[in-house]
Amino acid sequence: VAGADEEITSFSREMPWQVLGQWRNSFIIAGSAEELIIIDQHVAHERVLYEEYLNQLAAGDVPRQKLLVPINVELTPAQMLLLEKIEGRFEDNGFEIEPFGPRSVVVKAVPAVASRCEADQLLFEILERIENAPDDYSVEEVHRRTAAGLSCRAAVKMNTPLTQAKMEHLVNMLLATEEPTTCPHGRPVVLKLGIRELEKSFKRI
Amino acid sequence: VAGADEEITSFSREMPWQVLGQWRNSFIIAGSAEELIIIDQHVAHERVLYEEYLNQLAAGDVPRQKLLVPINVELTPAQMLLLEKIEGRFEDNGFEIEPFGPRSVVVKAVPAVASRCEADQLLFEILERIENAPDDYSVEEVHRRTAAGLSCRAAVKMNTPLTQAKMEHLVNMLLATEEPTTCPHGRPVVLKLGIRELEKSFKRI
Repeated sequence: VAGADEEITSFSREMPWQVLGQWRNSFIIAGSAEELIIIDQHVAHERVLYEEYLNQLAAGDVPRQKLLVPINVELTPAQMLLLEKIEGRFEDNGFEIEPFGPRSVVVKAVPAVASRCEADQLLFEILERIENAPDDYSVEEVHRRTAAGLSCRAAVKMNTPLTQAKMEHLVNMLLATEEPTTCPHGRPVVLKLGIRELEKSFKRI
Repeated sequence: VAGADEEITSFSREMPWQVLGQWRNSFIIAGSAEELIIIDQHVAHERVLYEEYLNQLAAGDVPRQKLLVPINVELTPAQMLLLEKIEGRFEDNGFEIEPFGPRSVVVKAVPAVASRCEADQLLFEILERIENAPDDYSVEEVHRRTAAGLSCRAAVKMNTPLTQAKMEHLVNMLLATEEPTTCPHGRPVVLKLGIRELEKSFKRI
């Protein structure tokens, strides 16, 4: 049936959604009165963290998580250069990074939303995304790319069992985002099946 | 995505299926390692009861349920005539029906699989289906139509909440039928979404 499982650009946020369960430890199945939706848990969480972090940056108040043990991260010359270039745009973003010799830095704190990530992998991911930016590293672009790298690393992975409470929390957080239907990289977050399409498929109407 | 929600003609019965939940008190959502399926609970139960009853007929052993209070059913002249015509084909099918005057019968027992149905409605449904039979009322045709009418009446309705245990039982019974994918009237029982199609829709592959 055409349209039955198409990517959607909007769905009803106001309706009460009921989480039915998790499939393959990767997809959350939820239903409202009119729609059955399948949520990709990783990209859904990415979208939530992405907007949360960008809102914190906009408000100039990014909670940070001090590392118990500061981590020494070796960088390539290109990465060192990039970090210097964007220094002014990489402030107050929750990271606390200090130079440590010519080829390494010490990470002393990371944004709280990414507190469970490996600090070195997090930094690599973000630098790689900024490196590939098409423009002259505007503050906005650096912020968006930092948010994208950070949310990708921090979001719950596929193949992760979630409790009913966690799934409900994630769905509610997703519904509260500005753009719940696509992830920061433009991938669909939600597939839906409307009751009319379903009834047609079942030859009920 | 083409094929993502197409009617299916086969699905993997051997796999362990996990019932995720019920949507709109009408559809059961279940998943295996490879497929997510949506089951129309009414037609699924119809299929189960239909085959169960036909198997009982074929074995010549149809359990019957005596009614606590026999029910007097008024029939039209056409229905009376039909009942006489098919008398020989309507024996040993679980019903115990006796004439009661020129325009009514007394129902004393019904097939056990339909024990919760209203006996008069059940009889009307079956007679209507037999009446519309295209052929000369062969035994097989009368049996199939009796089974179809009976399973339609006896099957769990839409908008009926089911416990997890009942849903699992229904899915297991459905998987054990000869033709789990279509109901006796040819309507689809199951819609499926394969993991490959889903991953494509989510742009994961």
